[in-house]
Amino acid sequence: MLRYLTAGESHGPALTAILEGMPVGIEIKEEDFELVLKKRQAGYGRGKRCKTEPEKVEVLSGIVNGKTIGSPIALMIRNSDYENHKHYMAPFCASSPDEGKINIPLPGHGDLAGMIKYGFKDCRYIRERASARETAIRTAISVPARCLLKEKGIHSIGMVESIGGIKAELNLNAPRDEIEKAIDEVGYDFLTPDKNVISSWKNLIDECEKKNISLGGSGVVIFYGLPVGLGSYVEYDRRLDGKISQAVMSIPAIKGCEIGNAAELSKMHGNASDEILINDKGDFYRSTNLAGGLESGMTNGQPLIIRFYMKPLPANSNIMSIDLRTGKPTKTEFYRSDIQAVTAAAVIVESVVALELASQF
Amino acid sequence: MLRYLTAGESHGPALTAILEGMPVGIEIKEEDFELVLKKRQAGYGRGKRCKTEPEKVEVLSGIVNGKTIGSPIALMIRNSDYENHKHYMAPFCASSPDEGKINIPLPGHGDLAGMIKYGFKDCRYIRERASARETAIRTAISVPARCLLKEKGIHSIGMVESIGGIKAELNLNAPRDEIEKAIDEVGYDFLTPDKNVISSWKNLIDECEKKNISLGGSGVVIFYGLPVGLGSYVEYDRRLDGKISQAVMSIPAIKGCEIGNAAELSKMHGNASDEILINDKGDFYRSTNLAGGLESGMTNGQPLIIRFYMKPLPANSNIMSIDLRTGKPTKTEFYRSDIQAVTAAAVIVESVVALELASQF
Amino acid sequence: MLRYLTAGESHGPALTAILEGMPVGIEIKEEDFELVLKKRQAGYGRGKRCKTEPEKVEVLSGIVNGKTIGSPIALMIRNSDYENHKHYMAPFCASSPDEGKINIPLPGHGDLAGMIKYGFKDCRYIRERASARETAIRTAISVPARCLLKEKGIHSIGMVESIGGIKAELNLNAPRDEIEKAIDEVGYDFLTPDKNVISSWKNLIDECEKKNISLGGSGVVIFYGLPVGLGSYVEYDRRLDGKISQAVMSIPAIKGCEIGNAAELSKMHGNASDEILINDKGDFYRSTNLAGGLESGMTNGQPLIIRFYMKPLPANSNIMSIDLRTGKPTKTEFYRSDIQAVTAAAVIVESVVALELASQF
Amino acid sequence: MLRYLTAGESHGPALTAILEGMPVGIEIKEEDFELVLKKRQAGYGRGKRCKTEPEKVEVLSGIVNGKTIGSPIALMIRNSDYENHKHYMAPFCASSPDEGKINIPLPGHGDLAGMIKYGFKDCRYIRERASARETAIRTAISVPARCLLKEKGIHSIGMVESIGGIKAELNLNAPRDEIEKAIDEVGYDFLTPDKNVISSWKNLIDECEKKNISLGGSGVVIFYGLPVGLGSYVEYDRRLDGKISQAVMSIPAIKGCEIGNAAELSKMHGNASDEILINDKGDFYRSTNLAGGLESGMTNGQPLIIRFYMKPLPANSNIMSIDLRTGKPTKTEFYRSDIQAVTAAAVIVESVVALELASQF
Repeated sequence: MLRYLTAGESHGPALTAILEGMPVGIEIKEEDFELVLKKRQAGYGRGKRCKTEPEKVEVLSGIVNGKTIGSPIALMIRNSDYENHKHYMAPFCASSPDEGKINIPLPGHGDLAGMIKYGFKDCRYIRERASARETAIRTAISVPARCLLKEKGIHSIGMVESIGGIKAELNLNAPRDEIEKAIDEVGYDFLTPDKNVISSWKNLIDECEKKNISLGGSGVVIFYGLPVGLGSYVEYDRRLDGKISQAVMSIPAIKGCEIGNAAELSKMHGNASDEILINDKGDFYRSTNLAGGLESGMTNGQPLIIRFYMKPLPANSNIMSIDLRTGKPTKTEFYRSDIQAVTAAAVIVESVVALELASQF
Repeated sequence: MLRYLTAGESHGPALTAILEGMPVGIEIKEEDFELVLKKRQAGYGRGKRCKTEPEKVEVLSGIVNGKTIGSPIALMIRNSDYENHKHYMAPFCASSPDEGKINIPLPGHGDLAGMIKYGFKDCRYIRERASARETAIRTAISVPARCLLKEKGIHSIGMVESIGGIKAELNLNAPRDEIEKAIDEVGYDFLTPDKNVISSWKNLIDECEKKNISLGGSGVVIFYGLPVGLGSYVEYDRRLDGKISQAVMSIPAIKGCEIGNAAELSKMHGNASDEILINDKGDFYRSTNLAGGLESGMTNGQPLIIRFYMKPLPANSNIMSIDLRTGKPTKTEFYRSDIQAVTAAAVIVESVVALELASQF
Repeated sequence: MLRYLTAGESHGPALTAILEGMPVGIEIKEEDFELVLKKRQAGYGRGKRCKTEPEKVEVLSGIVNGKTIGSPIALMIRNSDYENHKHYMAPFCASSPDEGKINIPLPGHGDLAGMIKYGFKDCRYIRERASARETAIRTAISVPARCLLKEKGIHSIGMVESIGGIKAELNLNAPRDEIEKAIDEVGYDFLTPDKNVISSWKNLIDECEKKNISLGGSGVVIFYGLPVGLGSYVEYDRRLDGKISQAVMSIPAIKGCEIGNAAELSKMHGNASDEILINDKGDFYRSTNLAGGLESGMTNGQPLIIRFYMKPLPANSNIMSIDLRTGKPTKTEFYRSDIQAVTAAAVIVESVVALELASQF
Repeated sequence: MLRYLTAGESHGPALTAILEGMPVGIEIKEEDFELVLKKRQAGYGRGKRCKTEPEKVEVLSGIVNGKTIGSPIALMIRNSDYENHKHYMAPFCASSPDEGKINIPLPGHGDLAGMIKYGFKDCRYIRERASARETAIRTAISVPARCLLKEKGIHSIGMVESIGGIKAELNLNAPRDEIEKAIDEVGYDFLTPDKNVISSWKNLIDECEKKNISLGGSGVVIFYGLPVGLGSYVEYDRRLDGKISQAVMSIPAIKGCEIGNAAELSKMHGNASDEILINDKGDFYRSTNLAGGLESGMTNGQPLIIRFYMKPLPANSNIMSIDLRTGKPTKTEFYRSDIQAVTAAAVIVESVVALELASQF
């Protein structure tokens, strides 16, 4: 069983995470961290911060000479931007604490609800922690889990299915290496196996960049090679569907999660199950994967297919809000400039699900 | 914080549940249990078992003279059908244990995966516990949570949105009492506020009953009156979106969960957030509810809207499978006769989310 | 990993427990429950209730035909005394709720603290749940854990070390079967291997019974046959010392817990560790067991020795308290008549530790 | 509710901890960390490492400008000694990994059990994490909890009761400020209110230092000002006795824990409870504190008294063990030079209990 906690403000000294429960001897390379974080940062239409701040993970414990040693793994990513914010974000004796105040709550973000919940007078502390920046360290802490899965012969692909309502054509039943190859050809900018959709997405994103509006989208993550019987039906909170969707829905801006193609499945008339067949060697197999790899909360040996829906990021658009100092209506200030982050979301979903799956071993 | 465990096989002596963490003094009526279980059992196209076995909840502890006393609440529902199965389901000294064997695993159910996971030679023990019958006690144990929410001024509605691909017309922004009234007029058979869709649903269900095939569907559950700030953004596993979807996706046959209308939101171009406005009294309000009531994992004071997608139940259809005794292909045996259970699902989703929300107080 | 919850008031309808996480195929006999509950009820100087109410466990789920099936195990013990109390303890529509009031809080019990915590006006609901009667179901729910341990070759002995300050002579390093045999000869009345102490204990208890005062004592529980490496040092809350003492100290009236002989160990000058030796076959062994079987929070292959200290039960003695109706000082009412329950405590400690240890498999 | 994880090897890059669940607005000073760590490091007879490595805590998140902001608090203490060990402790590409091997398992430590559990060929990785060095970060992460308690008017004192069997004379019923003053006069070297015992302890420690043997001891921690009703009796794992002793017994070398004076209490004949009295204002009070502040798992408004027993540290003495390379008997190597660490233990017990108590708010 794995447990993990993350910590860190968006402009505080550092992001950190501790992952507890890893088995010993799992091989991890320093580049594994770099690769996944680079992938998370990439994406056509991502904002400037993503480009200026290369994520450097420091391993503080739990990995020695490229292998897990059983003890908790602690990671840290320094916020290079902290220097510019420490006059109000310093843990102690900030020189000008009032300068950090954020007085216009951003609709679509937790600003207003958080202020009310915690009794803050402005939105700074909410914005700092509710920010999607937290997902950088969550992505990093998934690396040990990903390596564990890899040693078990389990591989995953994350891909974008749609951006701003324009849908890629995905053939999820294609062989894994075919999908991977197609995604590789498209590259980190779009993380999709459908190269034909790229120009439409590019145009849409370029157009939105001019208007300074953002786009949501959807994506699919597939895990291949899972053994039969991960998860369990015996208690409601051990069902893997629930555990996975808890993880996926805890990612900022993700508002929907499906195992397989739930919406389509819900429309079918009977026979919406995957026949059990047997081959010459006496092994069971299925010819379809409507269940998306889970039956009664357990893996059934088929690829595990997870679909997510992401809303447009609330950051860009000028939306009506209230200036807390005056109580007067005002437009939200320009905050950051990601036009889309669906590519990042695909990487993050892959990360959090990897943590859930690795926790089953 | 609430914790609960459920127990019970489908044809064993009884279903039980223990709920721990309830505050003292919450008023609960005996009829509260009956009402919600009756609603769960109803539904046009439900099978015979639902009709023959009225659920009788026995309160074993935690409620005295109609009020919670702080100690754990234990509930029991005897399986009236146990008498017919105890020759192989008795805890000790079953008279003919082999008679219970189920030798044809049901695709779409956990039969095969469970057998392999736990090393069983037949599917009986999987079928017994992975069965949706468990949701009867989960629905019952939500009653204390529902009563707690009611005392806080929180009310919920569960409704069917679509059956077998035929969609009701829902106006989720209509006033609560209007929606409730419309559902009441339609009744437990369909739990929908759109009376115009009923005849189409009825026809479809009747037709499927003849063919012995089942239908899935989708539904919506809304909670009104939630205070601002339930849940939290501070740690990934305290975000309410995740907690709610974990609960929803742990219900058998539910394969998708959305907060608000995630699929639609993912297609929008910018401005997909709910403006923050202020009224004459200085209170904040929103004129739209695209976020479905959650921002950054917290309630924002708007109605909480949860949508779920349910696959057709695997029970009815004759699907290809394997006879475990012979290793030969065969069709699954007729198992039960729910044509649709979307109405039940709406009640169960309401139940499990009520437990999550009550846990926040 | 095992999880369990217990429920039930002392004079409510029933005690229940649900145990989740048991592996499949563990053999359990109906007599296993009876035996351990009988042992818990026995003891020279136990009160009348213990004698009049034979504990009958009903298995409601999780065990079929004498074996665990992987799903949660639910147990119920009806309170035969409920009939005499249901006019105020009934879950609904109690006929004379006021008759149950307990107006004189018992010092040494949670009456007063509980009333203040939960805002009750009298002590009934505290007394009902804080009562040691809860340990009957906790003892029962340990049976599956005990059976699991037995299948792993692990055996346990619980014994009384002292009553009212009179100490038995224990040789904890004697072979297990020797200790067991000696205890068997003494019997359930005293659960000790030292037959010479019995007459002193008997005299003391008889004398106290006349004066209606109660006695505490201490006891030792030993687990034999544990594999090396249960528990872990990697995170503070996975250390077995902590888990075990949490379990032991959660038993009413137990106020102290030691692994091995902690008090003696604390006085030693150096060398207070068990030398590591190697035999002809190359197996490691120890010639002493000062550590009591745990090093760095893990079992080290030596017998696990747990010592507990129990205060005199607060029930018997006339102690000064306050009548809540008048605010005037008064003596507590006679409540029950256990002179000592150290024998029971030994059984309960064995039970809760069995649950912790079984949870490690 | 608070949760925390710690991480870090003894000679790895850093110790870290994340504490989740703190309320907002709790004042914390940078000196608070320094003070408690200095106190933990002090103690007559502590080894050289304690003196050469001043603990410098870096706050990485969760505290801004001297106050908690609700988000997780992350702390880091760099191991200054890492530079001397990184040729085999570096996370990646260690230059000479074999140099770190520890081939003689230390009896009394988890070396041997851990190796067997995790399948290691030598003891390095066990020694690194099972080391009491972990308690440095656990002590540090208690600071926010301590500050929370302070804001609630709760104060604690940790003191040494005995070293190597020589017992101080403690009057635990003396007023808090009297005890504090007496301890202050004695100072960090011994943390006891009994100045008369000092010379005996000093002589004993000096003598043991010459012989290179270590000493255990016992101590007492008292919390004053706790409100009535922290903890609960309703479920076994919510009882505060259990939670506290889990925390205390998870500290390396601590083998026994008592609430109040359990061993003495177990010998008393009846009346071993604290009478409930009422004063002129109608407030309840007690004239004794035999229960040590807890009744039925809840605080009862009396000072909470926790006693712990610590074995001599296994590090110093030359004990027989096995050289893993040869399988031959050998004496353990000199490892470190703490003669006693009971003073440190008192500080650590105070820390872990503070975390448990703060978790109740």
